[in-house]
Amino acid sequence: MKTISGLYTDHYQLSMAEGYFLAERKTDRVTFDYFFRRNPFGSGFTVFAGLQVLFDMIEEFRYDSDAIDFLHQRGFQDEFLDFLKNFNFQGSIYAPREGEVVFPTEPILSVEGNIIEAQLLETLLLNTLNYQSLIATKANRLRQSAGNRSVVEFGMRRAQGWAALHGSRAAVAGGADSTSNVQSAYTYGLDSSGTQAHSWVQSFGDELTAFRTFAEKRPKNCVLLVDTYHTLNSGVPNAITVAKEMQQRGEQLLGIRLDSGDLAYLSKKARTMLDEAGLHKVKIVASNQLDEYLIKSLIQQGAKIDIFGVGTNLITGRDDGALDGVYKLSAVNGKPTIKLSEDVAKLTLPGRKQVVRYYNGNDEFFADGVLLAEENSNGVKTIFHPEYPDKKSQVEGLKKEILTSKVFECGKALVEKKNIQEISEYRSHRVSHLADEYKRFEYPHIYKVGLSDNLTQLRQDLSSEIRGRQ
Amino acid sequence: MKTISGLYTDHYQLSMAEGYFLAERKTDRVTFDYFFRRNPFGSGFTVFAGLQVLFDMIEEFRYDSDAIDFLHQRGFQDEFLDFLKNFNFQGSIYAPREGEVVFPTEPILSVEGNIIEAQLLETLLLNTLNYQSLIATKANRLRQSAGNRSVVEFGMRRAQGWAALHGSRAAVAGGADSTSNVQSAYTYGLDSSGTQAHSWVQSFGDELTAFRTFAEKRPKNCVLLVDTYHTLNSGVPNAITVAKEMQQRGEQLLGIRLDSGDLAYLSKKARTMLDEAGLHKVKIVASNQLDEYLIKSLIQQGAKIDIFGVGTNLITGRDDGALDGVYKLSAVNGKPTIKLSEDVAKLTLPGRKQVVRYYNGNDEFFADGVLLAEENSNGVKTIFHPEYPDKKSQVEGLKKEILTSKVFECGKALVEKKNIQEISEYRSHRVSHLADEYKRFEYPHIYKVGLSDNLTQLRQDLSSEIRGRQ
Repeated sequence: MKTISGLYTDHYQLSMAEGYFLAERKTDRVTFDYFFRRNPFGSGFTVFAGLQVLFDMIEEFRYDSDAIDFLHQRGFQDEFLDFLKNFNFQGSIYAPREGEVVFPTEPILSVEGNIIEAQLLETLLLNTLNYQSLIATKANRLRQSAGNRSVVEFGMRRAQGWAALHGSRAAVAGGADSTSNVQSAYTYGLDSSGTQAHSWVQSFGDELTAFRTFAEKRPKNCVLLVDTYHTLNSGVPNAITVAKEMQQRGEQLLGIRLDSGDLAYLSKKARTMLDEAGLHKVKIVASNQLDEYLIKSLIQQGAKIDIFGVGTNLITGRDDGALDGVYKLSAVNGKPTIKLSEDVAKLTLPGRKQVVRYYNGNDEFFADGVLLAEENSNGVKTIFHPEYPDKKSQVEGLKKEILTSKVFECGKALVEKKNIQEISEYRSHRVSHLADEYKRFEYPHIYKVGLSDNLTQLRQDLSSEIRGRQ
Repeated sequence: MKTISGLYTDHYQLSMAEGYFLAERKTDRVTFDYFFRRNPFGSGFTVFAGLQVLFDMIEEFRYDSDAIDFLHQRGFQDEFLDFLKNFNFQGSIYAPREGEVVFPTEPILSVEGNIIEAQLLETLLLNTLNYQSLIATKANRLRQSAGNRSVVEFGMRRAQGWAALHGSRAAVAGGADSTSNVQSAYTYGLDSSGTQAHSWVQSFGDELTAFRTFAEKRPKNCVLLVDTYHTLNSGVPNAITVAKEMQQRGEQLLGIRLDSGDLAYLSKKARTMLDEAGLHKVKIVASNQLDEYLIKSLIQQGAKIDIFGVGTNLITGRDDGALDGVYKLSAVNGKPTIKLSEDVAKLTLPGRKQVVRYYNGNDEFFADGVLLAEENSNGVKTIFHPEYPDKKSQVEGLKKEILTSKVFECGKALVEKKNIQEISEYRSHRVSHLADEYKRFEYPHIYKVGLSDNLTQLRQDLSSEIRGRQ
């Protein structure tokens, strides 16, 4: 089955593309911006992820003869289909690095190209960036709760079908240490791990034999699952027996895994039993409906857990399930354009833009400013709240950096591909520039994103002009 | 990018497979059951979906030389990898038809095979069936709310990455009429539709020109999006102008689309405006954060909507995000096995089993009975609640049918492939056998699933035997 082709898009993108083609607008140049309106999970920020995967998929975003035949059957016109046969995206993309900390309202990524290629790319781009940014943000929250303990992504069986492939990647980019998903590990060079399920133990009937056989056949990184029958009466004692047998062979049991019951209570009891048997090095892995809140609470209650296995809540991005990222037209042939809305918060930002990040005196991120692309950021002294321009922040003289740069041009990525470890390290480094109040789970401080005076004015002018026409 | 290979699994499946191989257990025969413990969305039932896709993927579940090299690097042993080179699933699968109405606790699907193939398949099977059943169930709820109005699946941009491919398929199997997802339409023969976005209108600057150009270039199935500037002052009047121009050319505007604001209020106003212009045939499409509750409420308030476009809430299965389906070992070499739990509800059902569906006198589904495979269902007079055996139901003399049959054997599907329309019709037909009280959204009646006396006894005996050993 072929997953990505030029058909990986919403039907209306092709309808509009045909319309632009037939209206002889195919050389019109446009800019689209990708942004979202709300951080997921009530988070104070979002981790931007998926960019390199998007680049890979753009290469496959073509129309082969089967796709052309299909579109012909569905009523698309031959003249347009002839054009599609040679289609490939040749536009430019401006974006921050994967792993960047980003915020609502600001144009995180911009696409510049002809009106057909920029339009056709929309669905693929949203589909890729929305999901991976959602999962990377969730993983970062788990990382925050787990501190220096390990987090392993375990959710493949509950992932939304093929979402698993990129979900596991995004989880590791966002702060998980490894995944159970072997296909993702293979495709993206992730660490993968996992030893045994209840079925292993059941299939032997006798738990001690099951543990012993596993330890004999796979002594390396061996973790024994201790809750098939009774955790404290059977699982842990049998694991201790096997751990000692391994010691005598010069081997080391890596850990035991708890997968049911109260994980704080059981981990403390199990730790004591292991320690009393001299097995201080045997780690405790815990899984079962974990999320960032439960991990935090378990740690606060003194749970003796070294490795957290997180499944459904991570890979599906519960409780949100989607990042609300959108892709809006902001310029046509150099002319800024806007989408009105009754709701001021939904007014789009017109024109080609740049995002500037300002630092405070403690080298922490202070605010992000959205400026017109042609503005010299050195001249911008004040940024204004996008909805309430009376609220403003002085940014003059602050240390600053331009957040986005051109990362893709003429069908090729301009930046060197990073491995997942590098992306995760960049994320970690960037998150460390955020003050704690933005990282709080409950009602975090709202990070300032403001518009330059020129952009505020342009938006106001365009909005008045259109409303004046009605 | 290759999506499905034998690596599409959790790491521990491969660890156990190697363990079974090295322990010389590779010819052991086992049975695993797929079941879930809770209907999603507080629903009274679940729509079973994804089976045919699973069959397709089993064909691709192999290990090529790249996969073998990868596993070698990750420490798997050569002897086992030699075995994997020739691996392909040759087991049997027992299941109902796609689109069947199924319930918690009952073994919906069973896999019989050697211990390695049955174990390795687990993750792929759960990943496929959990997600598609979740989405088909959600779609069926939307179908229920929408009645005879159309439902179009619109969620590709918010889908969890590549989940979109099978999500759109499952949505149509579950009751959506069509999808915006062209890749799924191509792969699974679905109807796809979609015309224009705000960007089309914006790109012309002037809404009337935008509508007029679209209608000229793509008159067939033309739907105009009317909320880019102002729905009632601008969008609807301009659409009416264009609809009349189309009429003069002998063409028909299919509809207008509302995508913001109050959909009840706006649809009624728009309907009146269209009707006053004599445009009774022009349909009203509505989208924007719809779900089954909002659709129901809009209809109750007299909204004049003909077609509902549902995005995020359908394709991600909000508010659940996952069906909690599991895959548990129930027999090894013909011997029943069980997984204990402190929680009686989590005790597994041992042995090879069959599911019998009983009808009441009104030809409605009355209850499902889980029997041992070797039992003659004619001899079963009573079924017992799985947790509280004092609660029982008489089923003697009731019309009945065996729900599951062998659908896959020796690497091949035994049943003819159905197209998505047939699956959806079967679903609709089966849902019609459910009394209304099971279809209620709020606290639906709980459908009875009971165990035969023999199965109850077997579970009790195995449980006592194991507990006695501790």
